[in-house]
Amino acid sequence: MAANSFGTLFRITTFGESHGKAIGVVIDGCPAGLELTDDEINQELAKRAPGKSPFTSPRKEPDIGEIISGVFEGKTTGAPICFIIPNKEYDSTKYEATKELLKPGHANFTYIEKYGLFDYRGGGRASARETACRVAAGAVAKKILALNGITVEASHNLDEALLEELMREGDSIGGVVEFVATGVPAGLGDPVYEKLEANLAAAMMSLPATKGFELGSGFRAAAMKGSSHNDAFIMQDGKVQTATNNAGGTLAGITTGMPIVGRVAFKPASSIKKPVETVSLANEPTTFVLPEGSRHDPCVAIRAVPVVEAMTALVLVDALLMNRCCRL
Amino acid sequence: MAANSFGTLFRITTFGESHGKAIGVVIDGCPAGLELTDDEINQELAKRAPGKSPFTSPRKEPDIGEIISGVFEGKTTGAPICFIIPNKEYDSTKYEATKELLKPGHANFTYIEKYGLFDYRGGGRASARETACRVAAGAVAKKILALNGITVEASHNLDEALLEELMREGDSIGGVVEFVATGVPAGLGDPVYEKLEANLAAAMMSLPATKGFELGSGFRAAAMKGSSHNDAFIMQDGKVQTATNNAGGTLAGITTGMPIVGRVAFKPASSIKKPVETVSLANEPTTFVLPEGSRHDPCVAIRAVPVVEAMTALVLVDALLMNRCCRL
Amino acid sequence: MAANSFGTLFRITTFGESHGKAIGVVIDGCPAGLELTDDEINQELAKRAPGKSPFTSPRKEPDIGEIISGVFEGKTTGAPICFIIPNKEYDSTKYEATKELLKPGHANFTYIEKYGLFDYRGGGRASARETACRVAAGAVAKKILALNGITVEASHNLDEALLEELMREGDSIGGVVEFVATGVPAGLGDPVYEKLEANLAAAMMSLPATKGFELGSGFRAAAMKGSSHNDAFIMQDGKVQTATNNAGGTLAGITTGMPIVGRVAFKPASSIKKPVETVSLANEPTTFVLPEGSRHDPCVAIRAVPVVEAMTALVLVDALLMNRCCRL
Amino acid sequence: MAANSFGTLFRITTFGESHGKAIGVVIDGCPAGLELTDDEINQELAKRAPGKSPFTSPRKEPDIGEIISGVFEGKTTGAPICFIIPNKEYDSTKYEATKELLKPGHANFTYIEKYGLFDYRGGGRASARETACRVAAGAVAKKILALNGITVEASHNLDEALLEELMREGDSIGGVVEFVATGVPAGLGDPVYEKLEANLAAAMMSLPATKGFELGSGFRAAAMKGSSHNDAFIMQDGKVQTATNNAGGTLAGITTGMPIVGRVAFKPASSIKKPVETVSLANEPTTFVLPEGSRHDPCVAIRAVPVVEAMTALVLVDALLMNRCCRL
Repeated sequence: MAANSFGTLFRITTFGESHGKAIGVVIDGCPAGLELTDDEINQELAKRAPGKSPFTSPRKEPDIGEIISGVFEGKTTGAPICFIIPNKEYDSTKYEATKELLKPGHANFTYIEKYGLFDYRGGGRASARETACRVAAGAVAKKILALNGITVEASHNLDEALLEELMREGDSIGGVVEFVATGVPAGLGDPVYEKLEANLAAAMMSLPATKGFELGSGFRAAAMKGSSHNDAFIMQDGKVQTATNNAGGTLAGITTGMPIVGRVAFKPASSIKKPVETVSLANEPTTFVLPEGSRHDPCVAIRAVPVVEAMTALVLVDALLMNRCCRL
Repeated sequence: MAANSFGTLFRITTFGESHGKAIGVVIDGCPAGLELTDDEINQELAKRAPGKSPFTSPRKEPDIGEIISGVFEGKTTGAPICFIIPNKEYDSTKYEATKELLKPGHANFTYIEKYGLFDYRGGGRASARETACRVAAGAVAKKILALNGITVEASHNLDEALLEELMREGDSIGGVVEFVATGVPAGLGDPVYEKLEANLAAAMMSLPATKGFELGSGFRAAAMKGSSHNDAFIMQDGKVQTATNNAGGTLAGITTGMPIVGRVAFKPASSIKKPVETVSLANEPTTFVLPEGSRHDPCVAIRAVPVVEAMTALVLVDALLMNRCCRL
Repeated sequence: MAANSFGTLFRITTFGESHGKAIGVVIDGCPAGLELTDDEINQELAKRAPGKSPFTSPRKEPDIGEIISGVFEGKTTGAPICFIIPNKEYDSTKYEATKELLKPGHANFTYIEKYGLFDYRGGGRASARETACRVAAGAVAKKILALNGITVEASHNLDEALLEELMREGDSIGGVVEFVATGVPAGLGDPVYEKLEANLAAAMMSLPATKGFELGSGFRAAAMKGSSHNDAFIMQDGKVQTATNNAGGTLAGITTGMPIVGRVAFKPASSIKKPVETVSLANEPTTFVLPEGSRHDPCVAIRAVPVVEAMTALVLVDALLMNRCCRL
Repeated sequence: MAANSFGTLFRITTFGESHGKAIGVVIDGCPAGLELTDDEINQELAKRAPGKSPFTSPRKEPDIGEIISGVFEGKTTGAPICFIIPNKEYDSTKYEATKELLKPGHANFTYIEKYGLFDYRGGGRASARETACRVAAGAVAKKILALNGITVEASHNLDEALLEELMREGDSIGGVVEFVATGVPAGLGDPVYEKLEANLAAAMMSLPATKGFELGSGFRAAAMKGSSHNDAFIMQDGKVQTATNNAGGTLAGITTGMPIVGRVAFKPASSIKKPVETVSLANEPTTFVLPEGSRHDPCVAIRAVPVVEAMTALVLVDALLMNRCCRL
């Protein structure tokens, strides 16, 4: 159900294909009274725009969108906010040559297995371009969080010298994006199936090319002893805090008031200049070679940074609203 | 919303506290016509029963439940299946001594911050005992999967010599549980926000004590090059497969037909025999010491094995049903 | 999805068959801190208990249940509240004789068409007995409403002299139940698909034997002119009110602060002592005759009164919680 | 949650205000492989276009939209289908004069109570213009139904001589729209809270200006005896049917295979040329007079006919998909 929606009270639904007429997002459940302009969203979108660094693909698409609904006289009205980004510059012809081949590491095989057909132009719906819509929605979420004293920041672990080398080789590499949310009050998140970390994990693993998620000590915790992992409670700045933050900001799915810290693992981009063995749609063995002129990102984790921020913000704003209903 | 429910078409809702009258689960959306007995569920429950190994806590609770509804003349009717496990043996008195203290690594601080009160007896709703309900529901899911040729298995990475040492020390250690699902057809899972890996991640990170989730190559992918990570497509046994399975069984959120392989990181159990610095509910610094007679699990990952299997099964059966609706 | 659940933030899930082991309800999303006892729920249940009037069926079932979870030291904890009512007195043997016949006006034909099988004992899941669970959940909802100054009352339009006559004839009659909610603040309900009247309509039409729903002027509005239907706004008791209440308490799906007034039409009970033409499961024409000793309610609308109250309360408490999230 | 969404598996989300940039709908869950063109949707939209009859408001808006996503090479792909209708012709200036007054029978009072502000231009989000999006989505639903042999038709009960008189008077009248769905197989709809009639009732009562819903015998059933209401089962055309159809096509929430017949009551349009007593936003008593040049529909039920068809189709297509999952 609703495979293209995320969130419960602050709920987004995205639509659009990479090489279709436009992509867009509908935000349903944004509280009324928030000041909001096109510019604020477009500034956030600019952070993930391609061509920002020499190591991201060179599509010149400016990624400028506009608010279609839900804002009146500069404020949100409680009605759904639709934000649309037209697809201006694209050339689908280069995808024609390989449209009969399974593309290793990509969506076409599984989409065809599921749906019987696939919009192969630029990856269609499976393109990372969809994440622009998440960033747009995340911009609205971040504004609400900021009013509540909450900030979200993410960063990647990549070294640019290595990336230059990979560009020359035509190869790619994976990466890790770390996110940190500060100012989050204790008590956010729900028990059992709606634990904050469960929602964060789903948020991150719904991003293209992700292979792992961890919170706080993460996989390192698997080799730690309880005596070193337990975060002692202490009084600091007049409130309960923990001396360490192995928990990464939650206990039993609910925030402690400490920073929320987590990491997301991204696989190396599948589109590389080296040929890969594959089969055709007609089940004949062959070789996949990236068409001339195709984009080549040596590392998708770089452009994922603002997207990870957006997903963190979306999870937190939903938890913040939900928290208004937990007590009598 | 519905913090105690999981799944869309095959949807479970759990209830009950560790030291309350009973725990239970309602399964809504189980297809009609499935043969099902109490015994089949109880056998699955026996796998996670405490006291099964010297390294799990000694509670003697037999974990035997019964089907209350939804089965008629040995078959599911399409009506909700309620399965209830009475809480027979428990002694809540030992929790009295520490009920005024924040328990490091546990739920009481965050629950009190959220709800203003906490059922401290045995961890209440936050107890791992809730996972018995997941295993019960998972037993039903596994039966449906088996009819579709799908099996799910999980295992842990723990070494029992180390555990003996930890028992003596009164300390604990984390662990990793790996799950593998075989026989899964290509095409399961939904794009974008309902990617199979997103749902698996949420499933696993909703378990108590989890700190990380990864699929296939997982966090290792972050250091790999595309040229080694890409899984080549090949024809084998008359169908499209991949030569390697770094993907871990999905591409773009949808199954490839290869085994689904993932891992879950568990933190070391927080209840250890070493004292931990803490504060009281009245904000006074003090020390938390595990009450005499408290259970002590050196590693929660061991008992988590059947629970991880159950969550995998629940995600897959939901995807299997959902897949009936994706084509005209 | 979740065919046995109702509500969004205050969400109930019911389970159990008329002649199974028990029926029950799980309430997920009840705010923490509400004082709640078994007795309070059982008192509300007593209102719909059979045998209360000479015109309701004589089953002696006391309808006494107990809270299994979600309440600690007399207060709700925020955890799911499970309330279970055991099925003590029933005799399923009388249903054996007619189990191979389609029962006019009943569920067995459509359930068999859908699911391939049917728990025919006492109507199974389709029995009006399921509504006891709604009343139990409604009792909790009413407590929350009362704390907010909101009351809900319902009444039927039946004349008891007519009912005596119908009892003698072995026939039945339909009826109308009117509900009124007072003290409801302006601003509850959501626009478009979650209009308060849409949710009330779904709530009422989900009850067994209902054929119609109307709010305020209802079907009479279809023959009225705008000049007589429009409710003028006036200042009264220091606040905005309407001079008349043809609207029935909402405008555009959101409450006006005036009483919410609506009506539900119930069909005459299908179980009557007169034979009805039917066919067997084997498609052979025959006659359906109510088995000796079967219950016979001359009018289901009488026992529906507390159920209509419960459904009204459930819709309102959900809207009340949802309203906490509509503004910044 | 998701106040602007409707449906479970075939789920629509609408957005846009009457005098905003555009209105639109996202359909999530449409099965892949359906042939679909802009024209097919626009033809359905033309049925509700204003100015089609002398008795509907004269706005010249052509209501022509386009598919933005989800269709590739003429077929649906399984991705969300976004359909957008730009708002071309509107003049918001005439709403300025009355923007400080509560408008009897309209949304501004309740929206301001809920959200603290209101987009008053043409009714904003509360405008009946939103129903164009329902008709667009309904066009897609109808195509799927047609492939399954199901047709949906609606009609109103209005007499045009009366309407001419009302036009002269500047008054309005209510109306009833009846819908009939034929070819619906037995077994659609879910028990308990997702009864087909419950979903139909919610669908219809979510339309602007509706005051009542009934299925089959409806409110007349309240005065009928069981002996005349019961629909006898008979064999006809080789299958089980009922001799009469007082049920209106469902029993216990699930379709019988007989035509689904129901009715929706609409109130008289609130915008009339006669002055109505009201108060200002500043709580001062005054009179509401429809501004010069305002549209005046003597009866909203006329234009509601295709919208009622659309809502019926949306409910049925959702039930049709859901039915694929009810048996093993």
